[in-house]
Amino acid sequence: MDFLDEPFPDVSTYEDFHTIDWLREKSRDTDRHRKITIKSKESYWELIKSLLDAWSGWVVMLLIGMLTGTLAGVIDLAVDWMTDLKEGVCLSAFYYSREQCCWTSNETTFDDRDKCPQWQKWAELMTGHSEGAGAYVLNYFLYVLWALLFSFLAVSLVRVFAPYACGSGIPEIKTILSGFIIRGYLGKWTLLIKTVTLVLAVSSGLSLGKEGPLVHVACCCGNLFCSLFSKYSKNEGKRREVLSAAAAAGVSVAFGAPIGGVLFSLEEVSYYFPLKTLWRSFFAALVAAFTLRAINPFGNSRLVLFYVEYHTPWYMAELVPFILLGVRRKTTLLGKYPVLEVIVITGITAVLAFPNPYTRRSTSELISELFNDCGALESSQLCDYVNNPNMSRPVDDIPDRPAGPGVYSALWQLALALIFKIVITIFTFGMKIPSGLFIPSMAVGAIAGRIVGIAVEQMAYHHHDWIIFKNWCRPGADCVTPGLYAMVGAAACLGGVTRMTVSLVVIMFELTGGLEYIVPLMAAAVTSKWVADAFGKEGIYESHIQLNGYPYLDVRDEFTHRTLATDVMRPRRSEPPLAVLTQDSTTVEDVETLIKDTDYNGFPVVVSRESERLIGFVQRRELTVAIKTARQKQDGVVSSSVVYFTEDNPQVAEACDPQPLKLRRILNLSPFTVTDHTPMETVVDIFRKLGLRQCLVTRSGRLLGIITKKDVLRHMAQMMNQDPESIMFN
Amino acid sequence: MDFLDEPFPDVSTYEDFHTIDWLREKSRDTDRHRKITIKSKESYWELIKSLLDAWSGWVVMLLIGMLTGTLAGVIDLAVDWMTDLKEGVCLSAFYYSREQCCWTSNETTFDDRDKCPQWQKWAELMTGHSEGAGAYVLNYFLYVLWALLFSFLAVSLVRVFAPYACGSGIPEIKTILSGFIIRGYLGKWTLLIKTVTLVLAVSSGLSLGKEGPLVHVACCCGNLFCSLFSKYSKNEGKRREVLSAAAAAGVSVAFGAPIGGVLFSLEEVSYYFPLKTLWRSFFAALVAAFTLRAINPFGNSRLVLFYVEYHTPWYMAELVPFILLGVRRKTTLLGKYPVLEVIVITGITAVLAFPNPYTRRSTSELISELFNDCGALESSQLCDYVNNPNMSRPVDDIPDRPAGPGVYSALWQLALALIFKIVITIFTFGMKIPSGLFIPSMAVGAIAGRIVGIAVEQMAYHHHDWIIFKNWCRPGADCVTPGLYAMVGAAACLGGVTRMTVSLVVIMFELTGGLEYIVPLMAAAVTSKWVADAFGKEGIYESHIQLNGYPYLDVRDEFTHRTLATDVMRPRRSEPPLAVLTQDSTTVEDVETLIKDTDYNGFPVVVSRESERLIGFVQRRELTVAIKTARQKQDGVVSSSVVYFTEDNPQVAEACDPQPLKLRRILNLSPFTVTDHTPMETVVDIFRKLGLRQCLVTRSGRLLGIITKKDVLRHMAQMMNQDPESIMFN
Repeated sequence: MDFLDEPFPDVSTYEDFHTIDWLREKSRDTDRHRKITIKSKESYWELIKSLLDAWSGWVVMLLIGMLTGTLAGVIDLAVDWMTDLKEGVCLSAFYYSREQCCWTSNETTFDDRDKCPQWQKWAELMTGHSEGAGAYVLNYFLYVLWALLFSFLAVSLVRVFAPYACGSGIPEIKTILSGFIIRGYLGKWTLLIKTVTLVLAVSSGLSLGKEGPLVHVACCCGNLFCSLFSKYSKNEGKRREVLSAAAAAGVSVAFGAPIGGVLFSLEEVSYYFPLKTLWRSFFAALVAAFTLRAINPFGNSRLVLFYVEYHTPWYMAELVPFILLGVRRKTTLLGKYPVLEVIVITGITAVLAFPNPYTRRSTSELISELFNDCGALESSQLCDYVNNPNMSRPVDDIPDRPAGPGVYSALWQLALALIFKIVITIFTFGMKIPSGLFIPSMAVGAIAGRIVGIAVEQMAYHHHDWIIFKNWCRPGADCVTPGLYAMVGAAACLGGVTRMTVSLVVIMFELTGGLEYIVPLMAAAVTSKWVADAFGKEGIYESHIQLNGYPYLDVRDEFTHRTLATDVMRPRRSEPPLAVLTQDSTTVEDVETLIKDTDYNGFPVVVSRESERLIGFVQRRELTVAIKTARQKQDGVVSSSVVYFTEDNPQVAEACDPQPLKLRRILNLSPFTVTDHTPMETVVDIFRKLGLRQCLVTRSGRLLGIITKKDVLRHMAQMMNQDPESIMFN
Repeated sequence: MDFLDEPFPDVSTYEDFHTIDWLREKSRDTDRHRKITIKSKESYWELIKSLLDAWSGWVVMLLIGMLTGTLAGVIDLAVDWMTDLKEGVCLSAFYYSREQCCWTSNETTFDDRDKCPQWQKWAELMTGHSEGAGAYVLNYFLYVLWALLFSFLAVSLVRVFAPYACGSGIPEIKTILSGFIIRGYLGKWTLLIKTVTLVLAVSSGLSLGKEGPLVHVACCCGNLFCSLFSKYSKNEGKRREVLSAAAAAGVSVAFGAPIGGVLFSLEEVSYYFPLKTLWRSFFAALVAAFTLRAINPFGNSRLVLFYVEYHTPWYMAELVPFILLGVRRKTTLLGKYPVLEVIVITGITAVLAFPNPYTRRSTSELISELFNDCGALESSQLCDYVNNPNMSRPVDDIPDRPAGPGVYSALWQLALALIFKIVITIFTFGMKIPSGLFIPSMAVGAIAGRIVGIAVEQMAYHHHDWIIFKNWCRPGADCVTPGLYAMVGAAACLGGVTRMTVSLVVIMFELTGGLEYIVPLMAAAVTSKWVADAFGKEGIYESHIQLNGYPYLDVRDEFTHRTLATDVMRPRRSEPPLAVLTQDSTTVEDVETLIKDTDYNGFPVVVSRESERLIGFVQRRELTVAIKTARQKQDGVVSSSVVYFTEDNPQVAEACDPQPLKLRRILNLSPFTVTDHTPMETVVDIFRKLGLRQCLVTRSGRLLGIITKKDVLRHMAQMMNQDPESIMFN
């Protein structure tokens, strides 16, 4: 009779846009694990199976790392090729990027690394002329045309096949990792479309980065491999552990920074991050970095290493605030633009970007050049300007370089590029294509930093008797390195946007190899966090989450108001009493009515309506399934059957009464309770740390009401609006 | 009458060797914070005070960073001087170490950097002869004598003034951070004695490191500065946030690794590590590193940077297990040695260490030399051996060096040093002097790694036609770098001892500057963790904590048994019922009897003994203080007075009844409850994540029993012993 002792299918999954119950998932996993352990003692086969199960976590990590690394390598190669395709084509093999084309050529000289006969610009190929106004206009036109084509393809693919593929995806991943369900967000289709459109979007020259979307791609890979193992596919909690590690792998390949990736996942993205996940993330990030290194899309290093000799931290304080002015505005313009505007923005971007050498090239090349210190052999354009006067350096005790006219024109171009980047990035972010914010933010910071760096350098040269420069510039070495200013500026700007600190510094130095600059980078990260926090408490991801109204309980928000559980719980005084079931006096019909009339996720079960003593909690979904199944399969269960949750059968008054229905199996006998006097700060803490969906409120053992995660979030938002000042004092 | 609305002093503190209640501390801090926020609106002065309060966290971090950095610098300088004092003295200024002495001398040649006329060995100074058997014996004798003097001083100081100053202190700090109270462990006296004896112990040449003790010293600094701000000194939870950051600062200066320090604190030491603490730790570590850099005890870098060209990860698998054989035995010998043995061990160490050049010098110098790659200009002894044959390198396509006879003698010396280090470290660890395990572990790993490295190098040279070497050694570059083997060995050994992963890798590359070797280091860290976990689940700190029986609830242990709260709660079936108070029918005398007869930390308060409906929990300490104060100050409170916890006065039956005593103020109205059916894994999770001291157990609203943190730990230990196999399947 007690057929419910058999498991019934699928009751464990959650509905879309619902929150998971972490404690429940965890205890389900422990059950599964316990069963395997017991079975493993029965036979060798079971023992092997149990060992495989124990190692499946590492296997998943290995697979994620390998696929993520491969995808990142493919994306890098494709972007490289398509970015160059906007300007010209390789005659020896059309699928070579300019650099590959010229590397394979034997006729390349060191000075003209970027030019070789095999590589032809479109104008040259079509008209035979590579110089002159006509060729310039034709190149310009084709550049814009290709850009429009790429972005049109990207936006159409996203629109038609995978609407979830737009944006960076990090805010949604944060929400998902905190326990929210968004079906399809990490699906195969999203993975495919996001990978393809990411290449198109980046190649189109829009002011966006591939780093955020790569995290999304990595999480899709993680989700994909979860489905191979029931341990992960059937447990939403375990699945999120894998996704946390996948996010680390994503950042690892995006920046070539495995440790930075682990820290990013820990600091910025993850919600539940036990030490076991730390180790696994570490492993996944390692494999991903290794795979990418094996593919080696760019040669040995991803951004050029640079070595400088002196640094002082004082300038950061100046640098940070003025960068942040641009940064904060981004949050207010999120997601307001319709899809068609992608074309317009791409057009504007391409038209404006082409004439300026600093905006025409890809953003990561720009950053790499800005970070770079100007050595004697440096052939990059920015350094040519600075370096030519340097050749005729006066024999002086101040070894710094005087600025030639070239530097001033470079400064103007950079200033224009800065304005352009700030404005266009604001409009770009929030469009319906894959778009990351890391690289554009870093570019803005790096341009600003380089400008300030050159200014300080020239000041030091022309006024070397000023007190600050006197102590600072010793004979025999450069005293100001604009490249370092660019790096610090990039870090500060990125820190202002995302509020990362530790992970930011680690990423920056894994990115640049500048291990000696930990101290100025750390100072920049802390300063930019302080300044940005003074403007507003939230980073870009939190703002995005709030705009989208996701139920995200931020670990960072501290709740400092003096409210109690009784102020938040439902039902309020004016509302009808709480919908409860009794342990042995509700009929099947009553339950069905209750399910139909309400949309609660579950119902408390009490001893009786009079005593209000709580015995457990039953999920709506499980209740529905159980009754439906019982009605179909169990004889004698009719509308007037009594549903009972006790261990013993209820005393049946008369023999003619219908067969009762025992549902103790689906009753959660350990619902979470707090008393009505519990301060809300404690309740918030409990929800956050234990990942609850709901919590019952009692007083002296009597059930009073219920608090759900949404109630908590609503209350927090209310309190925040009532007293916005209080956030200052955290 | 209700005098208890005034705060009464000191009830918030905990007794020695008790556990704090994290939730309570947190809610007390929120209260304090709320009061300040409200007050801040009253006047500008209060506003300034509130801002100062908000910034006091950063101020404390600044102070900790500065003091920790200074102390580390002073310790480094003192150790340097006293280590050299064992061998000789500087004539130009007795307080110079050999290096400082010879740097200031003008007569130093590059080859003989360590020798200069100003620096005289003891034999030379006393007898005038620097060579010959007599001088050797005299130097030997004085070396041992100084070592014995230093270690005798160290052990006596520890024994007489600060017994807590012995050991590394990290296990105790872990326990303290998890919420345990050990009074005086982080006191001023401990700080002073530990700093002094650390210098003495390291200088005596014992096989111990200063890194662990530096963490203890940093935490003492943290505790010291906590007392400046009531925000931290009066709240044990907030204090622990500061201590976590201080631990990061300690590692930061110990290794010159600020980011590694933050990660070490996060991964290894801390219990409650919110993001706010992450940022503050980061700041403290930064300031400490900066201060140490300003003092600059060693010149620019702390261990020599080294650059190598090729690496393969396969050898790690070989390397790790054989190192771990030595490592695991350490845990079994902890703390068995009486104090007097310090002298014996020092004597043995000094006598055995002097003849071998690799053990005579300080351990960090040894590691630095082992890590070092042999360049042409290298003057260190190990490289002289390897380099001489290299000068006459045959013109061959294998560019590796043949081993001269010097290498084989170096190998023998290293092998002896390895055995010596392993044995002596086992005996040293656990002695009653400050002793860290990081540097000795790294030394053991580095020696073993270097030996393996040289062996592989020679194999590659002599058998360059073997398949593995063929793919691996390309013409024109060294194919095996013994220095890298040493570094990986050190990392693996340290990882095996402490089970660090991410923080280990970050520390290693901050230490060596070897950013390119992340991948082999990560592989070594993960492998060593796997191997070590196969031998036993716990790292050295956890073993130490268990040996000392501290109530530490490890975040890493997963509880997978199928027990319920009802199996763990007290009272058991055979025991007398739970000691409870009723809300309005207990007299003062009853309460006093209860306090006298039991030693529980607190008592649940119920509506009545019949209904067993829980209304709150009252702390023993607060109850004692409240009754004592009431008896002294409140008229009419006598033994027969009724103690009541309700909001309204109880109905006094007759007018002649004594004045009742209202104690609602000390009643915790939101005690934590779980039902008797809650799985223990959930209970463990709750205790861990919320930092509870105790939790009440109910069934259908009735109070059944209580579970304390100690009950949880006892139960976990029992279950572990019953079924030791289960730990394999985590």
